[in-house]
Amino acid sequence: MCQGFKAAGIHAGIKKTKDKDLGMIVSDVPATVAGVFTKNQIKAAPVLLDMERIQSGTCRAVIVNSGNANCCTGEQGMKDAIRMAKATADKLGVAEEMVLVSSTGVIGQALPVETIESNMPQLFDALSPDGFLDFAESIMTTDKIPKKLSRTVKVAGKSFSLTGIAKGAGMIRPDMATMLSYICTDVEAGSSILKELLTDAVNLSFNRITIDGDTSTNDTVLILANGTSGLSLNDASVKAAFKNVLEEMLIELAKMVVKDGEGVTKFVEIKICGASSDNDAQKMADTVAHSNLVKTAFFGEDANWGRIIGALGRAGVDLNPDAIDIFFNDVMLVQNGIWCGAEKEVEATKVMKLPEFVVTVDVHLGEEQAVCWTCDFSIDYVKINADYRS
Amino acid sequence: MCQGFKAAGIHAGIKKTKDKDLGMIVSDVPATVAGVFTKNQIKAAPVLLDMERIQSGTCRAVIVNSGNANCCTGEQGMKDAIRMAKATADKLGVAEEMVLVSSTGVIGQALPVETIESNMPQLFDALSPDGFLDFAESIMTTDKIPKKLSRTVKVAGKSFSLTGIAKGAGMIRPDMATMLSYICTDVEAGSSILKELLTDAVNLSFNRITIDGDTSTNDTVLILANGTSGLSLNDASVKAAFKNVLEEMLIELAKMVVKDGEGVTKFVEIKICGASSDNDAQKMADTVAHSNLVKTAFFGEDANWGRIIGALGRAGVDLNPDAIDIFFNDVMLVQNGIWCGAEKEVEATKVMKLPEFVVTVDVHLGEEQAVCWTCDFSIDYVKINADYRS
Repeated sequence: MCQGFKAAGIHAGIKKTKDKDLGMIVSDVPATVAGVFTKNQIKAAPVLLDMERIQSGTCRAVIVNSGNANCCTGEQGMKDAIRMAKATADKLGVAEEMVLVSSTGVIGQALPVETIESNMPQLFDALSPDGFLDFAESIMTTDKIPKKLSRTVKVAGKSFSLTGIAKGAGMIRPDMATMLSYICTDVEAGSSILKELLTDAVNLSFNRITIDGDTSTNDTVLILANGTSGLSLNDASVKAAFKNVLEEMLIELAKMVVKDGEGVTKFVEIKICGASSDNDAQKMADTVAHSNLVKTAFFGEDANWGRIIGALGRAGVDLNPDAIDIFFNDVMLVQNGIWCGAEKEVEATKVMKLPEFVVTVDVHLGEEQAVCWTCDFSIDYVKINADYRS
Repeated sequence: MCQGFKAAGIHAGIKKTKDKDLGMIVSDVPATVAGVFTKNQIKAAPVLLDMERIQSGTCRAVIVNSGNANCCTGEQGMKDAIRMAKATADKLGVAEEMVLVSSTGVIGQALPVETIESNMPQLFDALSPDGFLDFAESIMTTDKIPKKLSRTVKVAGKSFSLTGIAKGAGMIRPDMATMLSYICTDVEAGSSILKELLTDAVNLSFNRITIDGDTSTNDTVLILANGTSGLSLNDASVKAAFKNVLEEMLIELAKMVVKDGEGVTKFVEIKICGASSDNDAQKMADTVAHSNLVKTAFFGEDANWGRIIGALGRAGVDLNPDAIDIFFNDVMLVQNGIWCGAEKEVEATKVMKLPEFVVTVDVHLGEEQAVCWTCDFSIDYVKINADYRS
């Protein structure tokens, strides 16, 4: 249990369904805060507001709605984001700058801010140390399952905890911040070290996944550290333990996002090894992981390694075509750029029938490696996205 | 009729179906030749062979098979490409270096070169000035219709002609050469001016289309000019007329490739205007045209302009979010970054029900513009590519 935090999630009426659509996290005391935001040039109003407010390094609460992105909503959108925060701050009795805001859902429609304001009493009534699962549900859009993880770590007889929540499902690609994710921890932290550890962990997790290659205008990851555990990141052993558990937790949340991606039936790790630089390895992993032809072949359970080679070749990295090996789990299907034959293909096809597998590509140019977590591209992805607004 | 060229296309037995799979173009006299090839790092054996042979600037014949890409086939693949050319050259009685080769189809399987050799007499028997449609059929893979255009242009009482053939269907994206295309002309041309005019025309046509964002290992565009019309590109008025008709023809062929793309139900022109540079305009057009979310919304006939804005924002171009207008044909749906309301959306949705329409985005930053031709992303695209090899 992460000390000194409460959360809630309720149905306020922003979504047309009966699903939860309004959530809140509150820290009992002012928490140190750090964030990573979308690199999309078009940023939703709440993202712009948070980027400004987070400069102070502290916050007390985050309020989030799903069902409406409050993006491309002009000046009114910014006024609405501010109103949403102010309603929260007034009820908490804190300065409005101490509240951060996120929105997720359809772009370009006015936020029903009165609905949010009128549901504030109900939302506060629901706040509880056990409210994180409700919160996780309240930020879902096309997600099928809520994503919440908790970890407790002992250091020198004391312990600190983290609770992490994420939502994803579509508009997911690496090299951008990510979808929505919130991490609460009771460790004590300065804002600059918190930002550094968050950025490092995001680069190893949410920036290494892809579902459809699109990037949301609302992507936000926030971490709140309220210090109530009595353990501090100023202690080197606490910092080391915290760094490890944060990375492990965000990687796990990132994988959960891919597995629950729109129309996903298979979770695939693309691993590039033998690259001459880390950057090259990432470029190749990302290009293979993004390829629609590779992803439809995963869906079809077709060990079509020619498409993997085709994607590698357009990654913008110098390659030796005669020194490429490709494995499906531990089955070597291609050696030195040449097919290993029908027998190996039967084995590789068996691997592809699994719900999760690893495609490893060794390019034999150096020592560097990188991973990108991806999924198949299914008929349901198209159905979901052809129908999303209707 | 393009003088001094013959073509043929037959079923040799490379494909499992009864469809044509072996084609040839022969010039009666040595023709000047120029080519543009895939920028994929992994190049098929015939591409590597052509890139070498085209240095001489002349050729007599091109032999092409479909059903097998002869890519990732190692040293044997190069030997097979050379054999395929030699069988053609022997029959023609010319040096083997005067024959170019292309292959298209599945990657990584040995080319059945004996089948090609044993069908050579039948292929030569079929050669005819009227054989270009058969040739266009013989290079098809998942294409549904053959793509062939002819143009005749009069200059000062004489005339010259061009016949152009293309195949596409999948693995199509701009910034790379293109799929397979062959242009025959009876104009007289030096090889450097021919290369220059071809490259310019490809940049305006095949490099401005996208189907799925993937790039083939076999992309090739060849132009053969045999001079039999008696008109020469050394004449400025012939050159001007030729440049125009070549660009117009390649743009038309490029559009035919998109319209016949895998699973395509809609053909969409993405037009960016008001950009501060040509490069920025192209980046934005390409990013919108590639977005899976935009393309699935086209399929769903959903005027989901938020996805267009989302894609614009990740194009790597500085934007003013408050100065973006979006039109569906002549219906303005977004003005200054804000939705124009439900009435306009009804009109925009009507536009999207058309089989062809234009999405225009004005970013109000300058005077430059660019176009990218794209298509919707349908359930059938996924079905075709999940099943392609089986």
